[in-house]
Amino acid sequence: MLNRVRSAVAHLVSSGGAPPPRPKSPDLSNAPSAQPAVPPEAPRSPPARAGSGSSAPAKTVEARASFSRPTFLQLSPGGLRRADDHAGRAVQSPPDTGRRLPWSTGYAEVINAGKSRHNEDQACCEVVYVEGRRSVSGVPREPSRGQGLCFYYWGLFDGHAGGGAAEMASRLLHRHIREQLKDLSCWSSQKEVTHESLVVGAIENAFQFMDEQMARERRGHQVEGGCCALVVVYLLGKVYVANAGDSRAIIVRNGEIIPMSREFTPETERQRLQLLGFLKPELLGGEFTHLEFPRRIQPKELGQRMLYRDQNMTGWAYKKIELEDLRFPLVCGEGKKARVMATIGVTRGLGDHNLKVCSSTLPIKPFLSCFPEVRVYDLTQYEHCPDDVLVLGTDGLWDVTSDCEVAATVDRVLSAYEPNDPSRYTALAQALVLGARGTPRDRGWRLPNNKLGSGDDISVFVIPLGGPGSYS
Amino acid sequence: MLNRVRSAVAHLVSSGGAPPPRPKSPDLSNAPSAQPAVPPEAPRSPPARAGSGSSAPAKTVEARASFSRPTFLQLSPGGLRRADDHAGRAVQSPPDTGRRLPWSTGYAEVINAGKSRHNEDQACCEVVYVEGRRSVSGVPREPSRGQGLCFYYWGLFDGHAGGGAAEMASRLLHRHIREQLKDLSCWSSQKEVTHESLVVGAIENAFQFMDEQMARERRGHQVEGGCCALVVVYLLGKVYVANAGDSRAIIVRNGEIIPMSREFTPETERQRLQLLGFLKPELLGGEFTHLEFPRRIQPKELGQRMLYRDQNMTGWAYKKIELEDLRFPLVCGEGKKARVMATIGVTRGLGDHNLKVCSSTLPIKPFLSCFPEVRVYDLTQYEHCPDDVLVLGTDGLWDVTSDCEVAATVDRVLSAYEPNDPSRYTALAQALVLGARGTPRDRGWRLPNNKLGSGDDISVFVIPLGGPGSYS
Repeated sequence: MLNRVRSAVAHLVSSGGAPPPRPKSPDLSNAPSAQPAVPPEAPRSPPARAGSGSSAPAKTVEARASFSRPTFLQLSPGGLRRADDHAGRAVQSPPDTGRRLPWSTGYAEVINAGKSRHNEDQACCEVVYVEGRRSVSGVPREPSRGQGLCFYYWGLFDGHAGGGAAEMASRLLHRHIREQLKDLSCWSSQKEVTHESLVVGAIENAFQFMDEQMARERRGHQVEGGCCALVVVYLLGKVYVANAGDSRAIIVRNGEIIPMSREFTPETERQRLQLLGFLKPELLGGEFTHLEFPRRIQPKELGQRMLYRDQNMTGWAYKKIELEDLRFPLVCGEGKKARVMATIGVTRGLGDHNLKVCSSTLPIKPFLSCFPEVRVYDLTQYEHCPDDVLVLGTDGLWDVTSDCEVAATVDRVLSAYEPNDPSRYTALAQALVLGARGTPRDRGWRLPNNKLGSGDDISVFVIPLGGPGSYS
Repeated sequence: MLNRVRSAVAHLVSSGGAPPPRPKSPDLSNAPSAQPAVPPEAPRSPPARAGSGSSAPAKTVEARASFSRPTFLQLSPGGLRRADDHAGRAVQSPPDTGRRLPWSTGYAEVINAGKSRHNEDQACCEVVYVEGRRSVSGVPREPSRGQGLCFYYWGLFDGHAGGGAAEMASRLLHRHIREQLKDLSCWSSQKEVTHESLVVGAIENAFQFMDEQMARERRGHQVEGGCCALVVVYLLGKVYVANAGDSRAIIVRNGEIIPMSREFTPETERQRLQLLGFLKPELLGGEFTHLEFPRRIQPKELGQRMLYRDQNMTGWAYKKIELEDLRFPLVCGEGKKARVMATIGVTRGLGDHNLKVCSSTLPIKPFLSCFPEVRVYDLTQYEHCPDDVLVLGTDGLWDVTSDCEVAATVDRVLSAYEPNDPSRYTALAQALVLGARGTPRDRGWRLPNNKLGSGDDISVFVIPLGGPGSYS
């Protein structure tokens, strides 16, 4: 993800003058939660104790950033060093010994090829117990009444401009979701408000509260950068896939591909970004135009007719070039090179509260949304077999692997294992990561077809949707 | 459509204080076009010569409104009276004698059951010739070079709070499209700008220019009310379906239903409306809240927890009720009763520049979008048979008829005619209108299942996509 933020690290302003956000969200990191997640989390690497990174050059800020890998990898100090080795790029998975991840979930990851000091992806997999909140009418519910419920949780966090935001989100987002889900116990059926829409709303709000907490704590805890977040919640028969960023989730079911997310980039969110720039021109700082043109306009073209499109248009039309059309476009570039304000290539996620336009104090955060799109998949509507899986991957996987290629790998790897062998999902995750990383050859990491493999951090969850060893 | 605008007519303020819009669009009605549509339009009923409707009660304004039916119906004065008869509700179609509509298009319409004085739907069907514009570099193109092109055009316009906007749009929108398409002749292939995206952009801009013209001429020409617009353009092998409002287009192909539009209502556009109210709170005038609640909040509930959703959410979550949550919600009601600012039930279309919130000077227009969603269907990608049709209908049809019922009627009616009988499409349009209107029984218009038929204006185009007698 690092190269999706142009020079972002160099422009982090940790002592910025932005007003503190309203203290709306529960402060989960400072106040110990009354109801810990179950099973209780093993200790993670502590947050970095770095001092203020103000005005520090990029290298320095990065070196100070925290470095940790997911707890469930159970890495020894030696293992941690190997996971951090850009030259070897060894694929990491939870050990075969010891307790498996819930549902026999498979996981694998690999560090980038040197684009950032550490692996800025993070991951989390938990079973979380939700205690019911006191009811709306004010009558407290006693814990002994068994009003609580459990949800299963998987999260992938793809950091950029530092690993702090991804690390914090991997540690806390599921707690925010738990906090929001406490309201479920107060719910009684109302018109048009379904149980499902309450879970969706809880996840949406949890993302917002997580983002607000990052804004509050960015100085004290060195929450540098930002991160994409792709999260799965399983609750009462339904799988909720929440995505904010450019990670991706697909279900492969009986060979069929079911997309469970879409990517949020300057291209896919062009109209949302342009609308905001149009309605709040002050956010463009006189430096950018909300209009899009097929190419940069030259001053000598003033008064000529040029193709453009605005926040209302999906097609192109002509306009006469005016002076303010010479400004830099809010959205420019194509594909992986598309950028908001020439800086960031992803338009949803958590953090980035300090991100500024290069050589400017213009904040980019107003254009970034912390809200995920949530898709719901009803597990009970279909009889799933052990080969049906939900695959989550950061863009390191998807940049070089199509949905169809993933489905083919699912078929190839799982058919090589007994259906009841719980290690098959880890083997599949490893195969997907290896297939995207490639092997060192011709001064680079290359795929069998000799194209370049992904030099990005790559992280993959494979969640089985049916069969032995899964949920019950 | 009338009942989708609550008391709107009574609050038309034709002498309002809104600033004149920028003179951006070509003024098509006042300046005779250098290149008339081909074939030249037969004379339509002139626009109403009514005086200012300011402060006039609803009845008076309506009585003054223009009354005309589509030219291609070729109605005699007696026929016009029958078409205007709420008691008989005779179905109108073009006469069997004389020139058929292009492609042997079928058309039928019926007036409402008394909800408004006249039929506020309008329709247009034309073949339009587009002369090339002078090239971008300033070198004029001579007409004799044959740089022009033809497009086929169908439009349905469902008026509300008066018939003026629909009448004006039916008379002029295709001219705006022609004006925009002149730029096509300057086009040479550029990255990511396809020919198709230029046609889409031309249609999008034409809607905007039509709307701006209505704003400019609302005093002089008594353009009262507004209208939904559903438009089809056929150009160079592709069918462009542009929809702004709650009319609907579907293709029925070999019995399969292909949706070609979606409806824009306070429910489907909730998040867009809420975002605008959030970013521009002055548009809510201190009277409305941009938040949605499952029900109206009572003052005694202040401080309690209540479900809500905002512009970012698709799910519901809880918040503590504050004073401003007691305001009336920007979007309220469900289904056909959903309203923006308690007034209008459709969120895209043309006109409505004078529409105010009931008993208030708060304008509603800022929340309405004149931009259509344009879907493209490539006619060359499939071998169409004479039974494959594109069906356009105003909400009078779709309120009581499902897509599947329309597909069944397509099959039933067309199979009763020879495939090369060009009258079969008119028979189909009539059957659809009759099926939605019903017959007078038990003090109302009733369907065979005894449910109420549509008391609204109903208009239907049936456009054959293949077979004899169609385009070439």
